[in-house]
Amino acid sequence: MNKNRLEAFSDGVFAIIITIMVLELKVPETPHWSEISSIIPTFFAYLMSFIFVLSFWVSHHRMLFKLEKIDVSTLWLNGLFLFTLSVLPFSTGWVGRFPMSAAPEVTYGISFVISNLAFRWLSSNIHAEKTKNNIPDAGYRKIRFEVLTLTAVQAVLTGLGFFFPIIVFTGVSIIAIYCAISQGQINRK
Amino acid sequence: MNKNRLEAFSDGVFAIIITIMVLELKVPETPHWSEISSIIPTFFAYLMSFIFVLSFWVSHHRMLFKLEKIDVSTLWLNGLFLFTLSVLPFSTGWVGRFPMSAAPEVTYGISFVISNLAFRWLSSNIHAEKTKNNIPDAGYRKIRFEVLTLTAVQAVLTGLGFFFPIIVFTGVSIIAIYCAISQGQINRK
Amino acid sequence: MNKNRLEAFSDGVFAIIITIMVLELKVPETPHWSEISSIIPTFFAYLMSFIFVLSFWVSHHRMLFKLEKIDVSTLWLNGLFLFTLSVLPFSTGWVGRFPMSAAPEVTYGISFVISNLAFRWLSSNIHAEKTKNNIPDAGYRKIRFEVLTLTAVQAVLTGLGFFFPIIVFTGVSIIAIYCAISQGQINRK
Amino acid sequence: MNKNRLEAFSDGVFAIIITIMVLELKVPETPHWSEISSIIPTFFAYLMSFIFVLSFWVSHHRMLFKLEKIDVSTLWLNGLFLFTLSVLPFSTGWVGRFPMSAAPEVTYGISFVISNLAFRWLSSNIHAEKTKNNIPDAGYRKIRFEVLTLTAVQAVLTGLGFFFPIIVFTGVSIIAIYCAISQGQINRK
Repeated sequence: MNKNRLEAFSDGVFAIIITIMVLELKVPETPHWSEISSIIPTFFAYLMSFIFVLSFWVSHHRMLFKLEKIDVSTLWLNGLFLFTLSVLPFSTGWVGRFPMSAAPEVTYGISFVISNLAFRWLSSNIHAEKTKNNIPDAGYRKIRFEVLTLTAVQAVLTGLGFFFPIIVFTGVSIIAIYCAISQGQINRK
Repeated sequence: MNKNRLEAFSDGVFAIIITIMVLELKVPETPHWSEISSIIPTFFAYLMSFIFVLSFWVSHHRMLFKLEKIDVSTLWLNGLFLFTLSVLPFSTGWVGRFPMSAAPEVTYGISFVISNLAFRWLSSNIHAEKTKNNIPDAGYRKIRFEVLTLTAVQAVLTGLGFFFPIIVFTGVSIIAIYCAISQGQINRK
Repeated sequence: MNKNRLEAFSDGVFAIIITIMVLELKVPETPHWSEISSIIPTFFAYLMSFIFVLSFWVSHHRMLFKLEKIDVSTLWLNGLFLFTLSVLPFSTGWVGRFPMSAAPEVTYGISFVISNLAFRWLSSNIHAEKTKNNIPDAGYRKIRFEVLTLTAVQAVLTGLGFFFPIIVFTGVSIIAIYCAISQGQINRK
Repeated sequence: MNKNRLEAFSDGVFAIIITIMVLELKVPETPHWSEISSIIPTFFAYLMSFIFVLSFWVSHHRMLFKLEKIDVSTLWLNGLFLFTLSVLPFSTGWVGRFPMSAAPEVTYGISFVISNLAFRWLSSNIHAEKTKNNIPDAGYRKIRFEVLTLTAVQAVLTGLGFFFPIIVFTGVSIIAIYCAISQGQINRK
């Protein structure tokens, strides 16, 4: 099975998830500046989720780069991963509306943890395929380490979110910005 | 007529249908945990429809794999199939909101039966094209058998849904999970 | 400028327009069968618009088939055409909700007339490009004749719609079904 | 890293942004002609944003045309640019609803200024890549000049918008139409 259609389909889903989240920025009912301040939390929640989805997209891209044929098992694990991502507009919208409450913050954190676990499962399956076909997979260890660290940090943040809700979103934001900056500078060196 | 654009267009529609359904997971009006329990049925309905659409996507992919040129009749049958799929967000949203009522459950079942029939029509047309052009079509009988069995089971479930509504969704879920697991393991053997 | 990206972009817009219309099929507030009958007009309006968009997509595909390089003027005319199509979810939703009223029916008719005129402008521009580059364009006259006839018929129907609103939707439906069947049988002969 | 997937992903986001805006054209609650007049401002706001997004798409296309490999830094700057675009459905919807008020008009203006700045950053990064790889980049100066001029004009308009709100939308519209016509005629000469 060819990888091109998997990429095209995944890219479509990535693109839709990333832009569907903006629908949570409801057009205000009045023309006053105060409306802007009331959507600021939603705006930042959207920005952070955007960065994370983009970050997954970059990693997804790298992971599939050298692969040509794809197993049906990879197709399904990819589907599972995309499913976990597709719940982000919901959890992002909720945390944007109630950034100070435990339920939305913990849900938001869990949503990222699950996406990372699904991504981890997918990448280990792809790694197995590459090994089977003698394709070098230099970046695998790095991605695995990154994903596992991220998952651990997010899990801890999510746990703390039961007591200090806002810590989840704050932590997720710091990680997101760190990832974007560090990835963006890779090729600069 | 080239098959690439048909694939690109179909992949776009598949990707949009799969992610548009998540819009039925409305962002809650309050920040309480109880909101989660009230969206659980919609969440599972979405998960099952996601699995079915992905399953159609995998089969669609295989079906077109060896084909290069495409008839206009195939284009239209493909359109008909995509149309039947595009009704899924509606029936999924309805069954997720009222999982215990006959009307949504039966509508949900009928929606799958019709998608399967349209897929069957499309695949038999593609099979005819392949035969005409002497392209081997080894997987055809298997897909035909699977689709016909699935249609028959879903039709029976839908009929029972008039008396025991929840049986439709339960049955559809069991089939979906079975399909995903069995397809995912094909290449493992 | 390469035609691949124009096709990819256009296919994306076609796919989104076609599936966004289904969002007008609102998930009912009650679980009763009577809900189905109240969405039937919207359902049929959606079906007809789906057929027309698909029909434009097929023609769009053919038109670009032999072309390799694309003018910036074509890019903009293509954009204009896609813009006219993107208004369809609005006019379809309105006519589906009020199929017996003049304003929605006439708006629906005008929406198709404008799409056809934009398509006509685009296709004549592409024809000029093909002529300039000595690319044969056998199907051009046929498409031109079809589009002009369609536009004329729709314009007349739209005019009649001021007096007998439902005639617009009825006429559009008959044309859509006729187009789908006749195009679908081309390659059968 | 290959540019094809970047293009496919960006095209997906462009296509979705352009069509998601039309969802702000809410289907009217009554079947009267007066409904049309009340959506006219939203319609024109949508039309202008459509033209701008299309214009960005054309420039984006040209910019990447000769490039084959892409830096991770470009990927992230491209993401930043797409993010700024994805806020357009929000600002367009707001200005369409309240075209005479300062807050929406200024927000609308700022939204364009930020998109242009992000585009400028992206294009200078791509220019640096091209220079590094000895790829000629003839159009760069022209795009840079255009973007900078546009940004300056929009910034001035946005500032005036605090005093005469409608001037932002009027100015943006004139620029949009001017861009579309002048770009559309490039290849005619």
